[in-house]
Amino acid sequence: MKRLLFIILVSLSAAFYANAQIQRNPVANDDGTVTFTLKAPKAVTVKLSGNVFPQCFYNAPKEVWKETDQVDMVEGENGVWTYTTAQLDPDMYLYHFIVDGTRMPDPLNFQQVRDTDEWQNYFIFSKEKGDFGDQISNATLPHGTVSHVWYDSKLAGMARRMTVYTPAGYSATGSARYPVFYLLHGSGNDEDTWAEQARAIQTFDRMIAAGECKPMIVVMTNGHLYRDAAPGAGSILLDKPVCEMEDCFLDVVNYVEKNYRVRKDRNSRAIAGLSMGGGHTFRITLKYPDMFGYIGLFSASTRVKDFNDPEFRNSVKRLSDAKPNLYLIQIGENDFLYDINRDYREYLDSAGFDYSYKETHGGHVWRNWRHYLPEFCQKLF
Amino acid sequence: MKRLLFIILVSLSAAFYANAQIQRNPVANDDGTVTFTLKAPKAVTVKLSGNVFPQCFYNAPKEVWKETDQVDMVEGENGVWTYTTAQLDPDMYLYHFIVDGTRMPDPLNFQQVRDTDEWQNYFIFSKEKGDFGDQISNATLPHGTVSHVWYDSKLAGMARRMTVYTPAGYSATGSARYPVFYLLHGSGNDEDTWAEQARAIQTFDRMIAAGECKPMIVVMTNGHLYRDAAPGAGSILLDKPVCEMEDCFLDVVNYVEKNYRVRKDRNSRAIAGLSMGGGHTFRITLKYPDMFGYIGLFSASTRVKDFNDPEFRNSVKRLSDAKPNLYLIQIGENDFLYDINRDYREYLDSAGFDYSYKETHGGHVWRNWRHYLPEFCQKLF
Repeated sequence: MKRLLFIILVSLSAAFYANAQIQRNPVANDDGTVTFTLKAPKAVTVKLSGNVFPQCFYNAPKEVWKETDQVDMVEGENGVWTYTTAQLDPDMYLYHFIVDGTRMPDPLNFQQVRDTDEWQNYFIFSKEKGDFGDQISNATLPHGTVSHVWYDSKLAGMARRMTVYTPAGYSATGSARYPVFYLLHGSGNDEDTWAEQARAIQTFDRMIAAGECKPMIVVMTNGHLYRDAAPGAGSILLDKPVCEMEDCFLDVVNYVEKNYRVRKDRNSRAIAGLSMGGGHTFRITLKYPDMFGYIGLFSASTRVKDFNDPEFRNSVKRLSDAKPNLYLIQIGENDFLYDINRDYREYLDSAGFDYSYKETHGGHVWRNWRHYLPEFCQKLF
Repeated sequence: MKRLLFIILVSLSAAFYANAQIQRNPVANDDGTVTFTLKAPKAVTVKLSGNVFPQCFYNAPKEVWKETDQVDMVEGENGVWTYTTAQLDPDMYLYHFIVDGTRMPDPLNFQQVRDTDEWQNYFIFSKEKGDFGDQISNATLPHGTVSHVWYDSKLAGMARRMTVYTPAGYSATGSARYPVFYLLHGSGNDEDTWAEQARAIQTFDRMIAAGECKPMIVVMTNGHLYRDAAPGAGSILLDKPVCEMEDCFLDVVNYVEKNYRVRKDRNSRAIAGLSMGGGHTFRITLKYPDMFGYIGLFSASTRVKDFNDPEFRNSVKRLSDAKPNLYLIQIGENDFLYDINRDYREYLDSAGFDYSYKETHGGHVWRNWRHYLPEFCQKLF
């Protein structure tokens, strides 16, 4: 039976290897649907939870859109429970099972990503390779290097961990200087998340190879100033941070510009973040209006206590006067931060601030941020 | 109630942060035991599986030793199942639950490691910080950098991914040259495993800071020549590898010696591996007897088809004549490769080969390899 090519990050020839660590569930059907299976003979109820339902799809109507949902699976012979989706668009999907009320990962899919303190199974669905190629490693492309680097943050009073992407061709022996993109995460994430949950590394490798964005160094910080690193990698967890992200951020820029071969002008520095990291981006760029030539707010926490506060108004004016090459606000129509963003945009309009705005379907979800990232990157440098 | 200090990689002050990603299970008791809890009101049977039982402990008598075991948990009020261990030694422990026959991770412990295609929860038990400090990140120590690097393997016909540890102080702007330790994994692992499952990074950071081993670059390759990288990170999965590890390994050494500031003499090169990677080490060093000054076989697959084969005998003689500074064989008394190692040692004895041998408790398990690593490292360079 001919099947759609169903790319699960590895070739299907993997079946030859017992230890090949291939994903055996879910399975793609001829008609573009996907079937989930779980063997649980003693279970009373089995649910499938995730973003694999039509109401969770990127372009679901605003009125019915949901971030995630769950359905009852159907019990068949030998205690095997199944559920078949509607036709899927090429994308990365997250899911888990709920057996008699208890959350459970898929025992037939070892692919998991962590967000906050919860793990989800994932799979990448592609009608043909390339349809959603941003998220799939491609052996024919040059690969950048991903490093976990500790920098000394004098302001935060600790060594802190960050993830640094250096593009293919950046080597210890080279001499070319590169622009730098600072990419910040949300409140439930850490310095690993853009690389792992968003598969940003695969996106950079592909876009740079295709000439869709410039070769650049990407610096993914940890925005939780009460800890030094992702759980398991660090050992500091303070009751209260010594400083806020916008105050400590200079330590990052100083470290990068000292230790990497980078260009150090404003037009060679970009910054963007999602949610809390969008809020950090919002405040860092108001605090240092001359530092970044490219600024991206992805579903950003742009809450302003008082739009009449003279200090806020003056900061916006200084940033406006600095004329960044790009100030891009992106958000989904169902995002819970939509109103806050609308209020901020209305203020920017009233202040005559020149920004770009892109509104999408959906809400406060990784599916959006995975798409916002390449749109922002192609405008950089 | 005073409790033993129970280090779970983070401080207990974490409770202040809703998103702080702390481990909430298991819990340490005053008497040095640990209690596991799982809420599963509808379950008929709940088992705890792992290496947390006395028969799995490092120093359990040979006759009763088991790699892992499982016990029935006891149902209490409100469908909460519990199990309390015997007193634990400071160590890293792995476990999962089995609910009505189905494997399940601990919903109250987000810390997981992947080995082959299975995930296990883990926790690090320490009577007081430092008892098992090798495996815990220590904020007061300088941290090395961990990079995922792709090198072009002409012999394997693909770009391949490896993990490279550069010690604190190694920077793009420095001039010092470092020795290199090539560290190979087992058949169920990949280039991430020494860093993640064995927490080797924390071990190197601590030992280098304490002066217990020399500052060195550590290169952790992927030993599966039919694939390019760990699952999810790569995209090549061949039916049959183009070359074997011992044939392709020169590509690794050549890349490292071209792209890192390293010393290139035999006395500045070490190699060790566990299980399959021990087999790779065994064959690489027989093939290139002059390349490595320090050689470690951890529970190694040292199978020899025919000890009378002239080619094998000649290879051993050449390696013996090269007089490596260290040829250390380590294995547990219960290891399933014990007899193969004994046969190989008997041949080495008969051939007058000068090697070191360290036999430990236990079997073919990470607990052993986590302990073998620092013992080997302190003898290097």
